[in-house]
This record gives sequence, structure tokens and C-alpha cells, in this order.
Amino acid sequence: MSKTNPGRFFEDYRIGQVIRHAVPRTVAEGERALYHALYPARHALYSSDDFAANCGLEGSPMDDLIAFHTVFGKTVPDISLNAIANLGYAEGRWLLPVWPGDTLRSESEVIGLKENSNGKSGVLYVRTRGINQVGEVVLEFVRWVMVRKRDAASPAPEAVVPDLARVVAPADLVIPEGLDFSDYDFDLAGEPHRWGDYAVGEIIDHVDGVTVEEAEHMLATRLWQNTAKVHFDVTAREDGRRLIYGGHVISMARALSFNGLANAQMIVALNGGAHANPCFAGDTVRAWSEVLDKAETAVPGVGALRLRLVAHKGGAGDHRLKNAEGKYAPEVLLDLDYWALIPV
Amino acid sequence: MSKTNPGRFFEDYRIGQVIRHAVPRTVAEGERALYHALYPARHALYSSDDFAANCGLEGSPMDDLIAFHTVFGKTVPDISLNAIANLGYAEGRWLLPVWPGDTLRSESEVIGLKENSNGKSGVLYVRTRGINQVGEVVLEFVRWVMVRKRDAASPAPEAVVPDLARVVAPADLVIPEGLDFSDYDFDLAGEPHRWGDYAVGEIIDHVDGVTVEEAEHMLATRLWQNTAKVHFDVTAREDGRRLIYGGHVISMARALSFNGLANAQMIVALNGGAHANPCFAGDTVRAWSEVLDKAETAVPGVGALRLRLVAHKGGAGDHRLKNAEGKYAPEVLLDLDYWALIPV
Amino acid sequence: MSKTNPGRFFEDYRIGQVIRHAVPRTVAEGERALYHALYPARHALYSSDDFAANCGLEGSPMDDLIAFHTVFGKTVPDISLNAIANLGYAEGRWLLPVWPGDTLRSESEVIGLKENSNGKSGVLYVRTRGINQVGEVVLEFVRWVMVRKRDAASPAPEAVVPDLARVVAPADLVIPEGLDFSDYDFDLAGEPHRWGDYAVGEIIDHVDGVTVEEAEHMLATRLWQNTAKVHFDVTAREDGRRLIYGGHVISMARALSFNGLANAQMIVALNGGAHANPCFAGDTVRAWSEVLDKAETAVPGVGALRLRLVAHKGGAGDHRLKNAEGKYAPEVLLDLDYWALIPV
Repeated sequence: MSKTNPGRFFEDYRIGQVIRHAVPRTVAEGERALYHALYPARHALYSSDDFAANCGLEGSPMDDLIAFHTVFGKTVPDISLNAIANLGYAEGRWLLPVWPGDTLRSESEVIGLKENSNGKSGVLYVRTRGINQVGEVVLEFVRWVMVRKRDAASPAPEAVVPDLARVVAPADLVIPEGLDFSDYDFDLAGEPHRWGDYAVGEIIDHVDGVTVEEAEHMLATRLWQNTAKVHFDVTAREDGRRLIYGGHVISMARALSFNGLANAQMIVALNGGAHANPCFAGDTVRAWSEVLDKAETAVPGVGALRLRLVAHKGGAGDHRLKNAEGKYAPEVLLDLDYWALIPV
Repeated sequence: MSKTNPGRFFEDYRIGQVIRHAVPRTVAEGERALYHALYPARHALYSSDDFAANCGLEGSPMDDLIAFHTVFGKTVPDISLNAIANLGYAEGRWLLPVWPGDTLRSESEVIGLKENSNGKSGVLYVRTRGINQVGEVVLEFVRWVMVRKRDAASPAPEAVVPDLARVVAPADLVIPEGLDFSDYDFDLAGEPHRWGDYAVGEIIDHVDGVTVEEAEHMLATRLWQNTAKVHFDVTAREDGRRLIYGGHVISMARALSFNGLANAQMIVALNGGAHANPCFAGDTVRAWSEVLDKAETAVPGVGALRLRLVAHKGGAGDHRLKNAEGKYAPEVLLDLDYWALIPV
Repeated sequence: MSKTNPGRFFEDYRIGQVIRHAVPRTVAEGERALYHALYPARHALYSSDDFAANCGLEGSPMDDLIAFHTVFGKTVPDISLNAIANLGYAEGRWLLPVWPGDTLRSESEVIGLKENSNGKSGVLYVRTRGINQVGEVVLEFVRWVMVRKRDAASPAPEAVVPDLARVVAPADLVIPEGLDFSDYDFDLAGEPHRWGDYAVGEIIDHVDGVTVEEAEHMLATRLWQNTAKVHFDVTAREDGRRLIYGGHVISMARALSFNGLANAQMIVALNGGAHANPCFAGDTVRAWSEVLDKAETAVPGVGALRLRLVAHKGGAGDHRLKNAEGKYAPEVLLDLDYWALIPV
């Protein structure tokens, strides 16, 4: 019997099944420093313990996306090793800050299964939870992927498609305990723009671009213990190119969005997202954002912006997202929909 | 007088001589994070403080190979700066865990000298010890290298070739104090295979591959303060290629071996090893292992596997190691023989 | 109104103006580890807590150049985003060690303004201070840059050119509190050469070279949160090449200078410096130093060397710095003038 992990196939999942993913991970100052080396990350709350303390926290938490990538990476061997495509995200919420020294593990619950009409694959929906060393859920999100069947002849399961919220309701956003922007230092944060300065429909071009390198995306993807072959092995794809982990593009775009959204400090919800086109080394990643919605929160002084974050590899960008047929334009890499907290 | 280090030549060594190597190094969370970024390392005991505590340790120690590379790197300016070849390893033992915050230095004792028949070089044998900040030996190993003579005319020393154990005896393996696998979580570790599930002679193909980049191996090699020119300077070799530090291949292969050997958590002895062929950027490193032997240890529940770890740059691999003449096949990069601890 | 930072133009500065730069940064073990991965850094005082403690410090401080780059990086969005050239440094002094866990921010005071005769740009002089979380100034330096005018028609300000010291006087060097070389371990430091062994006019060729990669310089430059486009975006320059941050060359050269200056442990002053020619990926960086001066300090046993550190991309190097017309030779990358502390 082979001792290596062949991954799971569509037939291996059952509604209600809970998979405890392997390899818990302690994240600390080293991961933080690497995050700053890998991405042009400058949101002050994740850069300075002092700034974070001034915002009512005990220190600077690990970047929200460090938590996301760490939790996500653990699911890969069980969920997406045989995936054909990563189809979507929904109902993502950050529930507790992750502090340096915390240990994260992941669990996924199967909440949907629908075989494709070709009989060769199916769509799997899972709700993944990131859990810290004392058993608290720090993060949860739903994702769905297209997974190969082991055997086209095996019978289709009863189709179950979960009813997912298109957007996390503002009332469901969890504000970190103690967060307080009443003494917020806009000079140190880098920009003067408050919640009230952003208008729904406003588009912000983040100006900067980063040309990405093979070494960088592999360092990042390994750091999150994501093992998908296509990111590392030039023989894994027919074109001999290493596909860049979609999360690398998310982090790059989010970091670039500092320029215009420096005060959108904390990501608290992931409403949806699509990896519109593959990203490869040599691409120059740029980003723009659109303000999709605004909401007040239960904490005075803390507002929420719902933002569309688009990463693209085009020129200066006319903020084109989709073409006439409703398909993503070829230069678009990412279309992400999230809520962030910002001083009112 | 030149103030720079010209390295030592064969004539500069004497049997019994002890060389205190320079530049002690404190290793901590930063080195751990970089190790996870540089290699697809997933052994749970080095990934999670919580998992390690559950195995009876005070937390997650530094990876065994972080200790090895750090101790090895310090020897380079004194031992192998003028080396023609790194010939072998023997009698390597990990004696104490290295904890985040520990400071390591190295000492080497000359235990063998044998001039080559060409009169231009000789073989030097040293026993190297890694020592922590309170003077405890944490690691020891023997290695031998071929070193240039400064002057072919200088007389040959009396030949001394040490009598080295072909394999570290199971009774000599040191089990870290407190190590206890009685509450071991196989789900979190990533695989169900115990000591009893492995058979002598069994071969495990580790499936995954990593295409290596110049930036990555240089980051790693510098991290261990290994200064050998050939790794960094395109003008150092006639072919204009940077030779990848053999230790980078060791760590890459060991990390890849997770897939099939996830529970072979701790390396406790290095029986031998050969860097069979040079590795260069662009090579895709793969690995397979062979179970060479099995042993019980003095600690109930803790077993030992003697493993051959082979790194290669070939295709899927027919586990070919040597050709008909007994020479390593050209795609083989590394042939390493070590003992690891695994739950019984 | 655009929310992104367009940078400041020459007209935006006034003599006496103090700019508080954004994004404070906590630096710790992660940044230290990355520094060792990015550069062949081996000065023992920054490598080992134990060695530093033996030199009277509470532990190993962050490398002087980590402090410099962190403080410098914060100034880029306000000072040099529209700079045409980085012209010089003067009066740099390290005033307090930066410890792991410290948070740094930067302030710059405008001390000089002189419009160029072409009316399109001007020279801006600023004194930048790095400030820790308790408000202490840890580092200060003057730099001057050529900055574009927004509008060539805007009137020239009254020209103010500060009177800058050509060299920091030895009496103004600040020796870290407690520094004591009386029990200094030359074996562990790596070389036997003391202050008394260096002669003014002596030139030391540091022998080693490092061929630099795109991924590495971008990791470094992001780590210091330096956002200048030219380092990251292949479309930013007409030649499609990413310019390597000058500070990357400074750190590379300083690390290479270990070989011959292993005991020149701490940088305490920056007298001046020029980025003589651009550095690009693929260049092999080498270095040589010249002893420009020697001084005793107020602390017995602690001497100071004034050193010229030259980075170049040439061959073995004839230590050529400038050509007959007084222009830097094309292979010279950096000409840096600094004071370092060394055991007497």
C-alpha cells in the first residue's frame, strides 16, 4: 500500500463529514517579518505594536491574511489536491485576532456536493474553520472547488447546494475586543481619509505595481504549507509554468491597496472572490478598489467599508473587469469582495 | 599582510588539533519561519508548539537540520574553504534539542589526515561539535573533505584514517528528554503510519517535486552563514553556475519526505551521506526513501527507523541509485543515511 | 480627489518644516533572521546574544543597518517619491541601539532648499531622525535629493544650503552604554585584527562576491517598507530594469567587509556616501575598504576606524574609484564613508 497522500476524490466526501486537517502551525514574529518582505504591506496596525496598542489592542496581531493563508493551506491536501478549479468563497469572517505565538489548525465540514453533468467531476462545498491552541474559532469561510471523480462510473450523490449569503451582513461583522479608533493617529497611518471620505461607487487606483518572481511566490506558498504541486514543480503543468498561488495575488493586491486605503486597517469578512485568470512569474501585479458599500458597526468610531479589490496585470488600467459576454477580462487576476474596518 | 581569510590548506592541520570556529549564532522564531518558507517542511513537531508539547517537549524545538546547517556553516571558513570535495559524513548524533533563543557555536577536532598519492591534496577528517550557550554539546558529526595542499613539495604527514562506525548503533541514539508519543495525534501529524507499518526494504516515493531557484538557495546558505564562494558568485566556477549548497538539497529532500514519512518526526543520527551530483537552479528536486533498518529505543512507544533518503532530479524515478559500475546515476543528487524517531 | 499619494514636489517643502513619516514598524527576531538570509552578515555582535552580552550589552541589538533602512524607508513617500537622484548623506549618527521588539518611526526636518538653474527641479536637504516607542532618537542623518518641481513656473525659494560637517568628529561618536571589549573573544569574532593593526591608508580587498537576484533585492526593499516604484515594477523605467535599492548594496558590501574587518563590529556614524552607479540583478557585488582615519573613544578599549567602503561590480579590482576627470569608474556602485567601533 502506498504511504503517500493521493488526495481525496469526489466520491470520498459525504454531507456533514468533518475533516480535521493536518499539521498545526505556530505563527510568530518570523512569519510577520516574512510577510513584510514578501508583500509591500504597510497597514500600520500590523506593522507596529505601538500603533496597535494605541488602537486598544494588546499589540499587533498577525496580519488577517497570514491567518487566512495558514488556515487555507492546511485544507489543500484534503480538499483541493485533486481539484480542477477553485470556484469561489463566501461567508468568510475573522472572529478573533491571531497573536504571535498562537498555533492554528483547520477543520472543514462538507456542506454541499453536486456532481457535474459530465459525470467526471463534481463541485464540493466546505465550511473551513481555523482554530487556535485553546480551541477558539478564529476564522471561518466557505469555499467550493471542482474535484475529480476517482471513477466516472460511480453513482452521483444526491445534490446538495448550500444557500450562501451573497454578502456578510454588517451586523454579523465581529469587531476585535477593545478596538478603539478614538485616538487614531492619521499621520502615522499614512493617509487622512476616514470612513466618511469614501463614497459608494468610488474607484481607487492604487498606482503601484510589483513584478513577481518565482522565488517569491514559492517562499510565500511554502510558508503557508500549501502543497499543491502546480505552484512548485515545472513538470506539473503541460505548459511548464508554475501557477502562482491565488492567495499570493490576494496578499499582493491587498498590500498595494494601502495607497488609497491606508486606514482600511482590518479585514473582517470575505464576501466572495474569484481567481479570474492565472498569474505567473514575470507578471506585474497592480490593483484597484471599488467601494461597494458602507456600514456602521456596533463600536462607536469604527466603520466598515465593503470593498471590491481587483488585481490585474494590465497597463495603467481602465478598471475594466469583464467583457461584453460577462467573462473576466484577460488581464484581471483577482476579484475579491471583503469588509474592512476604518475609523469613522 | 592580508587581513582576509585565505582558508586553511592541508599542511595546516595536525591530528588532535581543535579549531574553535567563529561567529556564534542565536537562532529563534525568525529562522524557524524562514525554514518553512525555504522548504515544504511539515513535520508537525517542528511546526506547532502545541503538538510538540503534546509529545512531552516544552515547545517546538528548532528543526534538526537548522541545528545541523548552523553548526556546519561555521566550519566552512576553517575546514572547507579550500576543499575540492566534501567526501562523506559519519557518526552524526543529535544530543540535545536546540530551542528558540539558543546560541550555537562549533568546534572541530582533527581526527584523520591522509595525503593523496598525487601529492597535491589530502583527505582531512574532523569531528565537529555544536555547542550551545551553556557549553552543552547539542550535535556532533564526522565529515571528511579533500583539501588542497599549499605546496605540493611539503612532506606528507603520517597517514591517520579514523575507524568510523558504518552506522550509529541504536543503543547510541539519544532520545530527547521527556519525549512521549503515548498521546500522539496521527490526524494532526498528517498520516496514520506507525513504526510497525514500515518494513525493512520498503521504498517510498515521495511524489512531490520542487524546481529550485537561485534566490532561494542563496537565502538558505547565507542563513546558515556558509560562506563558500561557489554558492554565491557566478565567477567562482568555470561554468559560471552557482553550485547549490548540499545542505539545501538535504533539507529539501527531508521536507519532501513528509509525504509518506510524516511521523518520522525527529532526526537523531546521521550514519552517512554523499552529495552524489551537483544541484543547480532550475533542477526539480524529488525524493524517495528506503527503510534500511528498524530498532526499538530505550523509551517505550518511541521507535527508530533507519532511512536512506535519496534526492534526485530525474523523472518519476525508478529508484535507480547507481549504475552497473557502482557509480551514482547522473540524476541522483543525494544519498543520505539517517535514523529518525517515530511512534511505535 | 485622488486618495493615493502623489508624493511631494519641490514647491511643497519649507525650511524648518518637520514631516512625521507614516507607518511605524516593530522590528524583532524575524527581521534579524531575514537580514542574515539576505546578506552574508557575520559580525558576531549582531549574530549572537551571547557574544553581545560578553561585550557588555543586554543582548544582540538589531543590526545598525536594519535601523538605518527602517528609518530611511519611511521617508521615501514624503521625500524621494519624485526624486530624480539621491545626492548625498552627512552627519549620520547612531545614538542608541535598537532592540528586538522596538518600534521605530521617522521624522524629517527640512534644512536646505536650492532650486536648480534649469527651473525644473531643486535640491532638498533634510535631517531625518529615527525615534523609538518611548520617544528617544536612535539614529539621525542628513540626506539631500534632487526633487522635481510641480510647475517650472513657480518661483524659486530663497536658497538655503546647510553647512554640513564633512566628517563626524570622533568626540561626537556615541558609544552604546555598557559596551566593553575587555573580554572580547577574537576566536569567536573570526579574526585577530585589533584597532592597532589597521593603518591609515591601508586597503583591504574583501575577496568574496555575491551575484544578486531580483527576488532578493525586492524582499529586502519591501522589508524596510521602501515603496519607490523603480525597485519593483519593470514598467517604471524606460529600460525595463528594476533598479536595486542603494541600501541593498550598502548592506551587501558591509556584510562582505567581514572578511578583513570582522572586528569592526558597530557602525556609529555615516560621514558621507554616494551611490556611484546603478546596480541591477545579475551584477556580482564585491567590496574593498580603505582605512581613512583612526580615533580613540571616550571608552577605554573601544577604538574607532573611519572606513571608506567601496562596492563594485568589476573583476578582482585594482581599487580604482574615479577616472581622470574625477568621475566614478563605471564598475563602482557605492562609496561610503563611516565610523565603526573595534577593540583596541
